[in-house]
Amino acid sequence: MPRVSVPAVVVLAGGVGAARFLQGVVSALPARALTIVGNVGDDLEVAGLHISPDLDTVLYTLTNNIDEGRGWGVRDDTNHALERAASLGADAWFWLGDLDIGLHIARTEWLRDGHDLSEVTARLAAALGLEDHLVPCTDDRLRTILVTADGELDFQTYYVRRGHRDPVLEIRFDGAADARPAPGVLEAIAAADAIVIAPSNPLISIGPILAVSGIREALRERGARCVAVSPIVGGEALRGPAADMLRSLGHDASPSGVAALYEGLVDVMVIDDVDSAQADAIRGHGVQPVVTDTIMCDAASKQRLARATLEAAGVVSAHDD
Amino acid sequence: MPRVSVPAVVVLAGGVGAARFLQGVVSALPARALTIVGNVGDDLEVAGLHISPDLDTVLYTLTNNIDEGRGWGVRDDTNHALERAASLGADAWFWLGDLDIGLHIARTEWLRDGHDLSEVTARLAAALGLEDHLVPCTDDRLRTILVTADGELDFQTYYVRRGHRDPVLEIRFDGAADARPAPGVLEAIAAADAIVIAPSNPLISIGPILAVSGIREALRERGARCVAVSPIVGGEALRGPAADMLRSLGHDASPSGVAALYEGLVDVMVIDDVDSAQADAIRGHGVQPVVTDTIMCDAASKQRLARATLEAAGVVSAHDD
Repeated sequence: MPRVSVPAVVVLAGGVGAARFLQGVVSALPARALTIVGNVGDDLEVAGLHISPDLDTVLYTLTNNIDEGRGWGVRDDTNHALERAASLGADAWFWLGDLDIGLHIARTEWLRDGHDLSEVTARLAAALGLEDHLVPCTDDRLRTILVTADGELDFQTYYVRRGHRDPVLEIRFDGAADARPAPGVLEAIAAADAIVIAPSNPLISIGPILAVSGIREALRERGARCVAVSPIVGGEALRGPAADMLRSLGHDASPSGVAALYEGLVDVMVIDDVDSAQADAIRGHGVQPVVTDTIMCDAASKQRLARATLEAAGVVSAHDD
Repeated sequence: MPRVSVPAVVVLAGGVGAARFLQGVVSALPARALTIVGNVGDDLEVAGLHISPDLDTVLYTLTNNIDEGRGWGVRDDTNHALERAASLGADAWFWLGDLDIGLHIARTEWLRDGHDLSEVTARLAAALGLEDHLVPCTDDRLRTILVTADGELDFQTYYVRRGHRDPVLEIRFDGAADARPAPGVLEAIAAADAIVIAPSNPLISIGPILAVSGIREALRERGARCVAVSPIVGGEALRGPAADMLRSLGHDASPSGVAALYEGLVDVMVIDDVDSAQADAIRGHGVQPVVTDTIMCDAASKQRLARATLEAAGVVSAHDD
């Protein structure tokens, strides 16, 4: 059989780390080859505005609107609205720029008009010029709740407001039992030539996606190879609290600890050179390790990691340029 | 008895016309003499943000934040958020500047935290430096509905979106039957040395205030003199659709038509020189006319009208400076 000329690739994605990885992926694939299944467990409302931070980070990053320095928000945005709200005494702890608020206004209006989040996301993506398909894992309400010594915290209270310093005792996904996959998610997984799990926190970025009923099962029954990229390098997360969270919940903060979480779901895990000693432990979870340089510091390194991942998935070859 | 040195004055107020009149009133009274009872019948939600256009117009005007040219919104505001929303395809028909959105974010957060609109309004007023008391007529949900040939329209759809061109067949105030006066409203009316009805549309600016159960009765049983300023001059409204609306609902578009609507509630009506022939008709409604120049074109004319009104109410004398 000839190699698939326009492969269908599905990427399960969290926020900043996934978005940077996806920059490499889109540069390695033809337009419209990609379906990105995004996390909505960290969605929130600010003054009634519906905000989908992970979807927005992916969208802004892939359409060159992102504030690269922070990794989130819109480049060169102003802060007139939130500064005014704060000056009036509002507790403006979740920072939003004015252009970003404009997107949230559009999203919220459409949601209130009765459109599903997936339809709203597709509209926003089309308006910003995204050629690939970005879809929330579910249109239903799904919220990540962190159980800590100070009680249950919604995701953004844990992450932004309290600076993800609370040891996490348990993670719950409110609504997951009743959440159905958004239209197209299961179909994209079933039809994929390759499935990729981005280097995102397995517990709070990929976890909510896998908690949507049917998605984990679709991955277990996958027809295509599934490749995960380890978000843990040398015992630490490249960004965010993944390492501490893995440890506080009794997992290894290592690529093999992540492989254990993904056992049965992935065929290959891309790990960093510094973790080459983990290879056997990863094989012990039925996962084939691929060892390479996974640090993303510029466009070239993002492309290199994406290419190594897609090669491991069998949808690009070393001869492709 | 000596004249009251710091009179307690209550003004029932709509939006732009009332706000401009109130600029004159505050210049004629000591600080904190004034309680402004504002209309909330034209409140709306935009993308979940709670907006109180009439309260905001009064607040922005009296704290020197108003865009004088338009009469609403914040001076020198930017439009980054709404322009982005519109560029993404949102139907951004109710225009909001970025600083204005900041205020709506603060208001909406506080309302969602369980604070009443009157408390939220007091916070916003204090933060912007308003020394007088601005209070919504009710903390409960009250919405002005215009019945037209095209069906029932909420206020802002009628006024802003459709440019107040639809002939109005009927006006309803949704929620009025169950709406209770906000804390302090009835007390302020009972304790007032003078009550003033600003030159606002009697049907859709003052009407919602009077529709709150108990407020009309409190005015009927007033201990203080009540003076209305006619919003109709020479058969036309100085701003907005009051004249057409009065006619389409079978009222006279004249000061005496307004006096008929206020019969039993007001003792005096201030009318413009051009309407001096209306004096007898106004007396026929049990209302004493005061004829003067009511056109507000600058600070001096606003002060002159306010002073004439407060003199008619007996709380300032021609000898006060």
